[in-house]
Amino acid sequence: MQNFDFYSPTRVVFGRGTENQIGELLKPYAKKVLLHYGGGSVKKSGLYDRITASLQESGIAFVELSGVKPNPRLSLVYEGIALCRRENIDLILAVGGGSVIDSAKAIGVGVFYDGDVWELYGTAREIERMLPVATVLTIPAAGSESSNGSVITNEEKQLKLSYDNDKIRPLLSAVNPELFFTLPREQLAAGVADMMSHVFERYFTNTTHTDLTDGLCEVTLKTLMKNALLVSGDMQNYDAWADLGFAGTVAHNGLVGMGRAQDWACHRMEHELSAIYDVAHGAGLAVLTPAWMEYAYRDNVNMFVQFAVNVMGVEGSYRDPDALVLEGISRLREFFRKMGLPATLSELGIGEDRLEEMAKKATKAAFGAEQPIGGLKKLYWQDVLNIYETVK
Amino acid sequence: MQNFDFYSPTRVVFGRGTENQIGELLKPYAKKVLLHYGGGSVKKSGLYDRITASLQESGIAFVELSGVKPNPRLSLVYEGIALCRRENIDLILAVGGGSVIDSAKAIGVGVFYDGDVWELYGTAREIERMLPVATVLTIPAAGSESSNGSVITNEEKQLKLSYDNDKIRPLLSAVNPELFFTLPREQLAAGVADMMSHVFERYFTNTTHTDLTDGLCEVTLKTLMKNALLVSGDMQNYDAWADLGFAGTVAHNGLVGMGRAQDWACHRMEHELSAIYDVAHGAGLAVLTPAWMEYAYRDNVNMFVQFAVNVMGVEGSYRDPDALVLEGISRLREFFRKMGLPATLSELGIGEDRLEEMAKKATKAAFGAEQPIGGLKKLYWQDVLNIYETVK
Repeated sequence: MQNFDFYSPTRVVFGRGTENQIGELLKPYAKKVLLHYGGGSVKKSGLYDRITASLQESGIAFVELSGVKPNPRLSLVYEGIALCRRENIDLILAVGGGSVIDSAKAIGVGVFYDGDVWELYGTAREIERMLPVATVLTIPAAGSESSNGSVITNEEKQLKLSYDNDKIRPLLSAVNPELFFTLPREQLAAGVADMMSHVFERYFTNTTHTDLTDGLCEVTLKTLMKNALLVSGDMQNYDAWADLGFAGTVAHNGLVGMGRAQDWACHRMEHELSAIYDVAHGAGLAVLTPAWMEYAYRDNVNMFVQFAVNVMGVEGSYRDPDALVLEGISRLREFFRKMGLPATLSELGIGEDRLEEMAKKATKAAFGAEQPIGGLKKLYWQDVLNIYETVK
Repeated sequence: MQNFDFYSPTRVVFGRGTENQIGELLKPYAKKVLLHYGGGSVKKSGLYDRITASLQESGIAFVELSGVKPNPRLSLVYEGIALCRRENIDLILAVGGGSVIDSAKAIGVGVFYDGDVWELYGTAREIERMLPVATVLTIPAAGSESSNGSVITNEEKQLKLSYDNDKIRPLLSAVNPELFFTLPREQLAAGVADMMSHVFERYFTNTTHTDLTDGLCEVTLKTLMKNALLVSGDMQNYDAWADLGFAGTVAHNGLVGMGRAQDWACHRMEHELSAIYDVAHGAGLAVLTPAWMEYAYRDNVNMFVQFAVNVMGVEGSYRDPDALVLEGISRLREFFRKMGLPATLSELGIGEDRLEEMAKKATKAAFGAEQPIGGLKKLYWQDVLNIYETVK
């Protein structure tokens, strides 16, 4: 096990009706909040009314900034920063999924950052403070409700970069699985792939003596797969949504990756897809992850045997570890297929013409100094291109 | 799954050498700390010198209060409260195991409490604020390095009571598994029983649809048992101590019990033993837990079958669930025996003369209004006495 530093202070208020407590929960921290959300669905569902009623009951004023889109845009972040400064906002309340929350985090950081907040993305630069963010989660997927990350798309530069810092974890998140009942089926599917990937990126490691976190990863993955299929069969299954949503938070609050070298190659490869083609992050991950596994597993066969056996339930002869691994990957593909997720880039509408460009951007070869990606297996741009090619 | 509220903001800085960072870690929070510890072992080991050197390097002044004993005493807490007030202390640095940390928490609460801090113990009363506590952990067992609890013994009244509140979680904890190398073997054994019990108390539940936390509990228990045996065979096995210590923190930071009705009967029954006989908490738990399982399992056989199969690795016919359960309990007893833990009260030096008194104190029958204990199975004083009797 490696040394680690775990700090995940987000308060998670979880269960039926918790969105109605938001005013009371925020009262100690804010007199005026920025209500940040996406489009009309929060209004249609009545959620907007319940949240604004809760704020008003607690005497919390609010101004609004809506219009966050999947793969949240830097231009709206700039708008939010200006608005928070102008309106003397105390806290940003993000009502939505990962895109809204990531946008809120970027705004929160930007309000107190002396410069262009985009300068921080893709770096490990420190910040002094930020405007706190709270969330009412409407889509379990990105894990941003308690994670230390924010991913923003610079639409001008066609770049999608992240900023990670324990200081940007939300102050608190209200998570009511009932809010997930009306999600479109493809968002369920993409969300599950994203949550699983958050575990995979931490699970696949060359670090040894990691019994606890191996097990935490495996349990989280099995919970996600089992309950995704249950929800898929009944979109109003509260208990299955609750386990899925809770697992999505645990998948990305940092705990299951502590003390392990992490990978993150699949996320980096996928970010190039969605930066250019604006595809659903989880759908991109579902295409790339099994392909990455096939490409990388020979570098640490035992790790992948453990995945096949402990996560995918493969049984068989340990004298043929390749067969075990390939059966595990095949079952993962089958699971993604059952969830209705794509298996190729072409199904995502991505042609072959820009694969090399994306491979070079993922590894920074496009910007002069190539930096291989991936913790378990180092991938150079040619490797990334090879992986893209296998699933074109 | 039940609604829940999870808030566990303790920063855990884990790994080799982390105790030497303590001055740097505390610098943003304190100019003057109370250094709180037990006896001479921290001086003999050189830990005291390393910690005071780290504090001095960071310009942090300190005053000392040593003398914390296992089952920490209220009288020393009073002394600490007076000292902190007199010396204008900013933060209490607990160097030790659960007893030292629990004592530090009680002092921290008491400093700002307008009244006798003992009034809070055994209640759910709210507090406004406390003096923050940081820890350098020397014994993985109590989980107090990130838990929301403090257990104090009122030596005059022979009462051992706890106070639980998310506000009393430590600010940060430095955990270096190397510090555990010199622990006496019986402290390893008692510590493991305590850590396992923190999971058992959350695991055994009548709440259904708890896939994620079922799995988290099971993984934590298996990690504890496997690595306890490894350490038992080699007290300097860093990797095994690391998994054991990390699992001990996860066992008691609250996560694995979220959304579940919890039990806590074994802890309540054990507190009566150590309040009167001053036995090691973990040793008492090792005696009582299997006896409680045998007494309680018929109230929820399926829960105990899951324990037997998923935790203890029992295989067999599911058409005879009692046999599966009893085999699981038998394997747990065998594990405790291998660790050198006692199986009877008489091995702890506890006779039969005060069993009824303890049973009546545990259930408050001794104080007029009986309150049954236990979430999975309600235990009245006669039940507690029955359990004590089976292991006398």
